[in-house]
Amino acid sequence: MAHRKFHGVFPYLVSPIDERGRVKDAVLARLVDDLIGAGVHGLTPLGSTGEFAYLDRQQRRGIVEVVVQAARRRVPVVAGVAATTIADAVRQAQEYAALGVDGILAILEAYFPLPEDGVVAYFTAVANAIALPVVLYTNPQFQRSDLTLPAIERLARTDNIRYLKDASSDTGRLLSILNAVGDRIRVFSASAHIPACVMLIGGVGWMAGPACVVPRQSVRLYDLCRAGEWQEAMRLQRGLWRINRVFAKYNLAACIKGGLELQGYEVGAPLAPQMPLSDAGRAEVKAVLAELGALPAAR
Amino acid sequence: MAHRKFHGVFPYLVSPIDERGRVKDAVLARLVDDLIGAGVHGLTPLGSTGEFAYLDRQQRRGIVEVVVQAARRRVPVVAGVAATTIADAVRQAQEYAALGVDGILAILEAYFPLPEDGVVAYFTAVANAIALPVVLYTNPQFQRSDLTLPAIERLARTDNIRYLKDASSDTGRLLSILNAVGDRIRVFSASAHIPACVMLIGGVGWMAGPACVVPRQSVRLYDLCRAGEWQEAMRLQRGLWRINRVFAKYNLAACIKGGLELQGYEVGAPLAPQMPLSDAGRAEVKAVLAELGALPAAR
Amino acid sequence: MAHRKFHGVFPYLVSPIDERGRVKDAVLARLVDDLIGAGVHGLTPLGSTGEFAYLDRQQRRGIVEVVVQAARRRVPVVAGVAATTIADAVRQAQEYAALGVDGILAILEAYFPLPEDGVVAYFTAVANAIALPVVLYTNPQFQRSDLTLPAIERLARTDNIRYLKDASSDTGRLLSILNAVGDRIRVFSASAHIPACVMLIGGVGWMAGPACVVPRQSVRLYDLCRAGEWQEAMRLQRGLWRINRVFAKYNLAACIKGGLELQGYEVGAPLAPQMPLSDAGRAEVKAVLAELGALPAAR
Amino acid sequence: MAHRKFHGVFPYLVSPIDERGRVKDAVLARLVDDLIGAGVHGLTPLGSTGEFAYLDRQQRRGIVEVVVQAARRRVPVVAGVAATTIADAVRQAQEYAALGVDGILAILEAYFPLPEDGVVAYFTAVANAIALPVVLYTNPQFQRSDLTLPAIERLARTDNIRYLKDASSDTGRLLSILNAVGDRIRVFSASAHIPACVMLIGGVGWMAGPACVVPRQSVRLYDLCRAGEWQEAMRLQRGLWRINRVFAKYNLAACIKGGLELQGYEVGAPLAPQMPLSDAGRAEVKAVLAELGALPAAR
Repeated sequence: MAHRKFHGVFPYLVSPIDERGRVKDAVLARLVDDLIGAGVHGLTPLGSTGEFAYLDRQQRRGIVEVVVQAARRRVPVVAGVAATTIADAVRQAQEYAALGVDGILAILEAYFPLPEDGVVAYFTAVANAIALPVVLYTNPQFQRSDLTLPAIERLARTDNIRYLKDASSDTGRLLSILNAVGDRIRVFSASAHIPACVMLIGGVGWMAGPACVVPRQSVRLYDLCRAGEWQEAMRLQRGLWRINRVFAKYNLAACIKGGLELQGYEVGAPLAPQMPLSDAGRAEVKAVLAELGALPAAR
Repeated sequence: MAHRKFHGVFPYLVSPIDERGRVKDAVLARLVDDLIGAGVHGLTPLGSTGEFAYLDRQQRRGIVEVVVQAARRRVPVVAGVAATTIADAVRQAQEYAALGVDGILAILEAYFPLPEDGVVAYFTAVANAIALPVVLYTNPQFQRSDLTLPAIERLARTDNIRYLKDASSDTGRLLSILNAVGDRIRVFSASAHIPACVMLIGGVGWMAGPACVVPRQSVRLYDLCRAGEWQEAMRLQRGLWRINRVFAKYNLAACIKGGLELQGYEVGAPLAPQMPLSDAGRAEVKAVLAELGALPAAR
Repeated sequence: MAHRKFHGVFPYLVSPIDERGRVKDAVLARLVDDLIGAGVHGLTPLGSTGEFAYLDRQQRRGIVEVVVQAARRRVPVVAGVAATTIADAVRQAQEYAALGVDGILAILEAYFPLPEDGVVAYFTAVANAIALPVVLYTNPQFQRSDLTLPAIERLARTDNIRYLKDASSDTGRLLSILNAVGDRIRVFSASAHIPACVMLIGGVGWMAGPACVVPRQSVRLYDLCRAGEWQEAMRLQRGLWRINRVFAKYNLAACIKGGLELQGYEVGAPLAPQMPLSDAGRAEVKAVLAELGALPAAR
Repeated sequence: MAHRKFHGVFPYLVSPIDERGRVKDAVLARLVDDLIGAGVHGLTPLGSTGEFAYLDRQQRRGIVEVVVQAARRRVPVVAGVAATTIADAVRQAQEYAALGVDGILAILEAYFPLPEDGVVAYFTAVANAIALPVVLYTNPQFQRSDLTLPAIERLARTDNIRYLKDASSDTGRLLSILNAVGDRIRVFSASAHIPACVMLIGGVGWMAGPACVVPRQSVRLYDLCRAGEWQEAMRLQRGLWRINRVFAKYNLAACIKGGLELQGYEVGAPLAPQMPLSDAGRAEVKAVLAELGALPAAR
């Protein structure tokens, strides 16, 4: 399979939805354009930050359409597919492939616990349904079924399963994965890891919500890591880490949407019954963005 | 609000779906008819056993339609509504109300943790959207947000929130709820509690998957409890408890579907990637059903 | 083995320790005498409520000595043995046997997870070291290793392992245990279960901290359950349940000690860094004791 | 307070105990001597690997005595103090200080959950009882009470609380701690973190069981990190990580003791009911030690 290799900073895009349930196309398109202008290496709609778990089929499709069109193939778009059944996941993956995405971030939702054979069957079916590279997503915090190392080893044998994005906070787990399947699977960090550490151990970038609000700083951090400028990278990383931790304190979607509102993007609140960012949360997000030089001058 | 008071044995119906994703109407209708013939007091489609988390909008609607039509108003039908957003939950509740259900079992799905205000907003919105009694559903094992006692006290003030079904295994929690809101909220047991104990402390019945395969024995147990024949009730309960525990060992939907297949209902397997009941599981289910006299003579 | 069969209400005694670390003999002896006067069927020093985990070897021995002497063989004394090593557990069991206890409550402490063979080895070694009946203790909340049903079945084959006290809140687990080994192992409830429910399913009593402060009411509840007066039992149980739930909100030892102080027993505070009962907790304990008629008239 | 600053590789020493419960002085002294010869920067008796939770008072004292004497002040000895009560912890700390240790690793054991004030009181009392630097120990996996960031900030104000060793696997937590109190508290890694990552973000070394069996390789890794030779460090780290992961699969004490036995140190098995390393575990440990060049030639 020939494809541009995914690497670098992939912001998890928020999903701006208006009060009548419609995708706010213009604001999402402007955000996409600005992020590309800031140098990000790819875009990931329908991740956790993108509230995939709160959107219906039509809203999800709408988000992907807007992002693909606004990106104009300048950077790869890797869309999240999340389902409890194989049938639904395959349908989503094929639908987004037809819309022109460059890769699929495959997320397994589960209600009852699922044995490893079922987990492997799910991800394999998604990969077999499309001719695009697949990023395995694992998040022990929010998911009921997790990808074990043996499951990952089995999945690595499928040709177009090429990447993994791990949303645990256990960085050692990533090194174990790299030790086991590092020749076949490339690893992206998430916002619960320290990106500089994941780069040090052999990661190829990160997919994370905070990159929506600090894209330039994120790209700079990536460049420093790639150049082996570790001391300078850590200086920047220390400041950026504050934003990850503020965002971990609150509802993630509320935080990123709140931060983008402060930057002038009218992305609205997360879908109810999720609550908008509290006043205290808003003040804290504002303070950390100001500190990082990520607020417009007039504000 | 005038309504037949819900009480007694409400089997959680399975959702028979064929390989092309269509509801198997005939087998579901026959199951409904047989359960009513066996004396059950109500029917609950789209509970956990009914794989609500694995069905799409059309399948869910189909299941409710078949059950309402097959029940022919002989017993109340209380359909499960499960969503992550208020908008989706309200839409489902109104759709099922229009189809003729007698009550709603309200289930909150969540991806990000939700503060109590959000939990209360969700259930209140569902109740306000319909003119039917609402059963609150709480299941700390499978759900990411649980109903705390303070949240239940707040919800009990809404007129048509009249029942609660608790799927924890903490029976003391039910007594605390009854102590606090027992004058306004009636409590149903789930299969993780001992039904006889829940009846003893003031419960009004149980909503549970196993009642699909042992309806007569379940109704007999209920009658004994209502009559205060506790020693006799416990003799029966001890045997029935084995079935609950076998079912707790395996995927619940796979077990109930497997048991019904043994009884001659071609309900099929749970939706993939859930796995069908294993051979060992099937043997164990068969043994316990035989012991309880719940297998057809010829088998 | 001939022994008085254990049954009924066994208060978990607190461990009154003065500021210099010495056992407050007089207050403990008076409490023992009063509890026996109130009709309790046995006494259990060095349970969770007795802060076994906070006492050194000499303090533990002192507590057992005082209780055995004050009980004057009027009711059986079942002392807690808790250790991480077999060597220490055997030593404790033999020491308390020599002091004249009537049974041992065997508690396994663990730091690293322990496989089932290790769990079985521990309890078997304790039982083999003494010629007294052993009560298995299991508490999934506070212990790192729990007794699985297969482990209990293996242990039930040892002659003097005759009882089990389960401190989970999963009452169904008790019925599973009774179904499996009910002919060899008798089951005591803990304060996280509803005692009336455990009696209904075949339990023989309860070992619990709250019985220290409401002994008469507890004995009355036991008598009603034994007589099959379930409705009356539940009326009493509903009130008593409030006390269990108040005590579950706070540090258990602090609560029982605080309640006893309100009743005129100068048992002091739990050992530091545990905190004494807060003012709010004290007010809540006082209110519930007053409601149950368990406070001295003058207060 | 003047003290040699702690930094570098501190092996968590095992506790060799013979079948009669006595410390095996000679083998422990030889291990200490060899580790110092291999270049380690300090020694930590009575950590998790040292089975502190399984040793009685006399055994703990014996271990510290042997280590202090064998070390002959060539490297600092930081002994573990672990207790549930302040009184016991203070006694231990003063006893080990009198024996000549250079610092205390302070571990809080808990049975009941402890509010933050109690946690702070415990560690403060230990620090105030001695004139030695204190290392805070936090291990969310095995401990019932964890050190929150606010608690650490409060404790950092105590003069001789100078270090923290974190045994979680959440490396980001360490960066948050360094961001908050990095000017007052130095941070050591544990075997669940990738040491090279902890060094990158500003750590000063690691305290870990595996360093007992691969001391030279550990010191080399530390030197590479200090020199900023990150690529070379990661090459070594990748191999060493395998040993951490093998050890995480089994009982930690059994693994390190088993590895040392393979290297010719007759340290024996962990205390019962802990199980000795299984044959499979032994083979796996042997393979990884061989791969790292950490087995004697003749074996």
